[in-house]
Amino acid sequence: MKAARLYGPRKIRIDEVPKPTPGPGEALVRVLACGICGSDLHYFEEGRIGETAVSEPLVPGHEAAGVVEEVGEGVEGLRPGDRVAIDPAVPCGRCEWCRRGNPNLCPEVRFFGTPPTDGALREYLAHPADALFKLPEGLTYEDGAMLEPLGVALHAVDLAHLRPGQTVAVFGAGTIGLLVVQLVRLCGASWTVATDLLASRLEMARMFGADEVVKADEEDPVGRIKGTTGGRGVDVAFEAAWVHGTTEQAVEALTPGGTLVLIGIPSGEDVVSFRASSSRRKGLTIKMVRRAKHAYPRAISMTKKGLLDLKSPVTHRFPLEEVKRAFEVASGYRDGVVKVMVEL
Amino acid sequence: MKAARLYGPRKIRIDEVPKPTPGPGEALVRVLACGICGSDLHYFEEGRIGETAVSEPLVPGHEAAGVVEEVGEGVEGLRPGDRVAIDPAVPCGRCEWCRRGNPNLCPEVRFFGTPPTDGALREYLAHPADALFKLPEGLTYEDGAMLEPLGVALHAVDLAHLRPGQTVAVFGAGTIGLLVVQLVRLCGASWTVATDLLASRLEMARMFGADEVVKADEEDPVGRIKGTTGGRGVDVAFEAAWVHGTTEQAVEALTPGGTLVLIGIPSGEDVVSFRASSSRRKGLTIKMVRRAKHAYPRAISMTKKGLLDLKSPVTHRFPLEEVKRAFEVASGYRDGVVKVMVEL
Amino acid sequence: MKAARLYGPRKIRIDEVPKPTPGPGEALVRVLACGICGSDLHYFEEGRIGETAVSEPLVPGHEAAGVVEEVGEGVEGLRPGDRVAIDPAVPCGRCEWCRRGNPNLCPEVRFFGTPPTDGALREYLAHPADALFKLPEGLTYEDGAMLEPLGVALHAVDLAHLRPGQTVAVFGAGTIGLLVVQLVRLCGASWTVATDLLASRLEMARMFGADEVVKADEEDPVGRIKGTTGGRGVDVAFEAAWVHGTTEQAVEALTPGGTLVLIGIPSGEDVVSFRASSSRRKGLTIKMVRRAKHAYPRAISMTKKGLLDLKSPVTHRFPLEEVKRAFEVASGYRDGVVKVMVEL
Amino acid sequence: MKAARLYGPRKIRIDEVPKPTPGPGEALVRVLACGICGSDLHYFEEGRIGETAVSEPLVPGHEAAGVVEEVGEGVEGLRPGDRVAIDPAVPCGRCEWCRRGNPNLCPEVRFFGTPPTDGALREYLAHPADALFKLPEGLTYEDGAMLEPLGVALHAVDLAHLRPGQTVAVFGAGTIGLLVVQLVRLCGASWTVATDLLASRLEMARMFGADEVVKADEEDPVGRIKGTTGGRGVDVAFEAAWVHGTTEQAVEALTPGGTLVLIGIPSGEDVVSFRASSSRRKGLTIKMVRRAKHAYPRAISMTKKGLLDLKSPVTHRFPLEEVKRAFEVASGYRDGVVKVMVEL
Repeated sequence: MKAARLYGPRKIRIDEVPKPTPGPGEALVRVLACGICGSDLHYFEEGRIGETAVSEPLVPGHEAAGVVEEVGEGVEGLRPGDRVAIDPAVPCGRCEWCRRGNPNLCPEVRFFGTPPTDGALREYLAHPADALFKLPEGLTYEDGAMLEPLGVALHAVDLAHLRPGQTVAVFGAGTIGLLVVQLVRLCGASWTVATDLLASRLEMARMFGADEVVKADEEDPVGRIKGTTGGRGVDVAFEAAWVHGTTEQAVEALTPGGTLVLIGIPSGEDVVSFRASSSRRKGLTIKMVRRAKHAYPRAISMTKKGLLDLKSPVTHRFPLEEVKRAFEVASGYRDGVVKVMVEL
Repeated sequence: MKAARLYGPRKIRIDEVPKPTPGPGEALVRVLACGICGSDLHYFEEGRIGETAVSEPLVPGHEAAGVVEEVGEGVEGLRPGDRVAIDPAVPCGRCEWCRRGNPNLCPEVRFFGTPPTDGALREYLAHPADALFKLPEGLTYEDGAMLEPLGVALHAVDLAHLRPGQTVAVFGAGTIGLLVVQLVRLCGASWTVATDLLASRLEMARMFGADEVVKADEEDPVGRIKGTTGGRGVDVAFEAAWVHGTTEQAVEALTPGGTLVLIGIPSGEDVVSFRASSSRRKGLTIKMVRRAKHAYPRAISMTKKGLLDLKSPVTHRFPLEEVKRAFEVASGYRDGVVKVMVEL
Repeated sequence: MKAARLYGPRKIRIDEVPKPTPGPGEALVRVLACGICGSDLHYFEEGRIGETAVSEPLVPGHEAAGVVEEVGEGVEGLRPGDRVAIDPAVPCGRCEWCRRGNPNLCPEVRFFGTPPTDGALREYLAHPADALFKLPEGLTYEDGAMLEPLGVALHAVDLAHLRPGQTVAVFGAGTIGLLVVQLVRLCGASWTVATDLLASRLEMARMFGADEVVKADEEDPVGRIKGTTGGRGVDVAFEAAWVHGTTEQAVEALTPGGTLVLIGIPSGEDVVSFRASSSRRKGLTIKMVRRAKHAYPRAISMTKKGLLDLKSPVTHRFPLEEVKRAFEVASGYRDGVVKVMVEL
Repeated sequence: MKAARLYGPRKIRIDEVPKPTPGPGEALVRVLACGICGSDLHYFEEGRIGETAVSEPLVPGHEAAGVVEEVGEGVEGLRPGDRVAIDPAVPCGRCEWCRRGNPNLCPEVRFFGTPPTDGALREYLAHPADALFKLPEGLTYEDGAMLEPLGVALHAVDLAHLRPGQTVAVFGAGTIGLLVVQLVRLCGASWTVATDLLASRLEMARMFGADEVVKADEEDPVGRIKGTTGGRGVDVAFEAAWVHGTTEQAVEALTPGGTLVLIGIPSGEDVVSFRASSSRRKGLTIKMVRRAKHAYPRAISMTKKGLLDLKSPVTHRFPLEEVKRAFEVASGYRDGVVKVMVEL
């Protein structure tokens, strides 16, 4: 079968690899859609995220959906032909973090596309049945792939403990930022602002419920937020821009007692930094988002009800054969590109 | 000036009383709309709520809005002609509950229409300027009056810590219940059910976002909820029916780990009761709602943005002269009646 | 091997039963100490707790420790001779409650001594190795058995979110109540009162850190608490008396904004009830305790450090042969009896 | 009367200034003890904290106690001769932060010794009676002065939501760090480590309940913590060292899901910074401490009960006349010096 494999910064190609066999408790899934995410791009562009580096050839991709082809021994509740979203995380299930309900913090987790665990940009994969979630009628495979970033956005919004009527700033309107904007609207925010450098993303943010948008290369987001809120600042800020500088903006844009949720992984220098005096004077709370947890059933029920638009963010589609092109388009941070989907 | 005064169970009449003068920090407000609430009805029907009884003639009413006629010494930010919603609570501001941000628990609070503090069903009242909130353009006096029950509903929803995608049951679809249904929809619930005995209220609940409704005299709400959720139950239940029995239903309808928010004041026996074994096995959390706190600015910004429909629940309007008729209509618990508003 | 088996109310005897064999992932444990708990007594005295009734002969007991005799296939980290405390709960590990970190709410849990799952009052049992926790040097088998009620007390105290300097009332000074008193002292409470009907328990409560004690048949606990706190009431109340009436006392003894933690399972009528008006006016939070979660490592580290006295509550010891006598002594609610331990 | 006044970095002298008169609601207090705190030292050493700079001569000092000499109009509950601790914060009482119970975040707060509000290093001050707390018998004026840093430590510990049995690291064993160590012991921590550069402080930390101490110039605190906890790290870390570098250490020393409480104000560069990759992978929560709130009654009841040692940290005492010497001793960060108290 075919698989996309990353050999180092910007070196990706299609290899022929053996088709896996599902073990006990596993199902064999034919992958039909797989999104390219910011962390995939980190590996594609830099070959690493912090201390985690690509050494062996690695199959990237962790936002995936497909159809069950075969089930292994002892699998109940799934059968060939079932359309499924694929949770890319396989936590150990036994450590204190798993037991306490935080499998996203499991030190032993195997996660698609994170060295040394291969990801989903291949024709087939064998995966624990417990990590496969049936797609109800009305959800496409692309929707299924989008449930993964939606799970991250849900976790981020859960950490913020949003209450109806609050004011919110979302720094960065990529896939995650745009899903956060949608969820924030769903949480009854009374005012939401989104920032980005790309006009098309801001337009989409507006369509998804942002009351105002700021093109951050043309206007200072902090100034705008302070201006619109009469100097008060916002209750909650989400950093989803994946660059340095936005964390500091978020800290300055928050009201005293506010909450900052950090989602993005900045490129380059491995550091979070912001002003000590203003953050302390405001008594801020900062929550760091590590992937997602318990997201699929919730994300599926919300999407099924029509509460979320998972389709509009998918701006580009490529077949597996053009995976390199797909990564290049995704990595350019260019106007008009949000989520790039590989269709298998 | 004229004031409605309650002399005992079902004894209410219009009296001529002296017009008040605003003291330092106070404003004189001409009342223009005042809703009749369940606790007003408790005093009207039974002459008491628990241990708090009407002894002297009492002006009822605490859901009010009007226009500023005059301001007392030292009042800034308000002037004659300002249209305002009136927060009926004047907490002491110095006790440990006020200091800790829970003025709704202040033991020294003076609250409109609660003995011995006169309420708002009168032509004029003098009130601390800090408890008057300007109505922005687009909000009517009736909307202003409705901000008070909206504040209670907001407090109830805050206590529930709702997260997007959760499932919710609202027991009782009176004014508060209907506002809770609206807020629950605003919080991104994936499924909401409302119960009541009156068809018109259930219809309104559906209009406000309930996915299902149960006429509780025709069908067992617990059975329906268990049925629709595959036996799981709901994440959060609100008791807003103000009768005995619904608390027990709520406890049975909840999923393990669920949260019950008790809003209603039951008539008759002064007791909350529910099944010990099932509530403990499920490890429930129960939150008791005491009025509202910090609600007005938030409620105003949400209403201004058009997130809430405060108009539909107002089903009846009476002039002050017909206040007795207003109370009788409100107290009947009859189909077609939700909020009865007195227009002054 | 020998096992104590319950055949109905007050019918318990020693039977000869087959010795179990450890399956994959299990260990065979020789039980050396097993406490008798209130829920065991419910089954002994009434044959049921709520809707859960003893039908087949049932081995009671869920507070146990012993020594590993043999390990099944695939067990790592345990070997024959290891001294272990035995977690009586075997949750399914796959349901949403387990995944979310609440195995105590797992609907599929198998729990020692709860029909139809046999308990620990037998010479040997085969148990998942993941539910066995090594006893460090310095902890006896009795200490190991006491870790189970300590886990319940820890869960109760966790739910209370105690902060240093708060005031606390503990209603009921049986084993759980006494462990709660110890934990409350450990949490830096500035004042703690304990109530019971038995002088010896109150004496022990005082020894464990209660600043005051109330013999509830001689003095009204609510009156005392209101008196000592200048009418304010306590921040947190624990109901651990397992009788009706104490819940109502706890509600009345709490300060506005206070938290009530319900631990006890009342005998007789299956109902929780308390005053509606005062509980609502005070805006209370009520948390229902369902067993324990994630307790063993924490309980072991605290006990090892000497923070808790698990020995003093053990007032009586019986060999397995005298198990009926053990239950009778435990069930009498008589002065001088707290925890009855069966030594095997 | 005499007052210590700061004119710029390291310029402090005793001036003769007018004795104040208590206005309505105020009391005149003769100051008898006043501690020198880290933020006083920031102004003494650098003339500023972040953007807040000393421009006019400023009376420093905000940890104070004294005796009431005279009460203004309308003061109840206080009379001449009462011994009182002085809360240095006078929040506006009307802004949204005050109303919500966070007066420590009040943008309009006047706070002793923060420009342009004069502090307590003077013979007399007029202060709102609501901000004066009677010292019970057994508490000295020095204890009264120490209640202020104790309040900060309490707020920090509240933010950490410590539960009994957790593991804790305290970075920096100055006055606040040492009080945090005491409170952590009071919260039932199962293991606590403290770090500092000064041997005498570490000795005191050990006396106050730290299980281990690390002299950070001789051993890497992160290495020690990882070593002792088997690589797991601690549940909660407090940064109370007021230098750069310890925040990063705290982030590295935490376990996944852990909480970092930032108390210290670093000198020099106005920035908080730490590693992005590890903090995000661990999904940390960070809480910034802004002064104290609602601390006095709680701090007094705990101290009265003997739960805290406020005397040992006071290592040096000077009369008002030697205030410059007092600041110099306090600012040296030298072994043997913790809290320097000015006795008036």
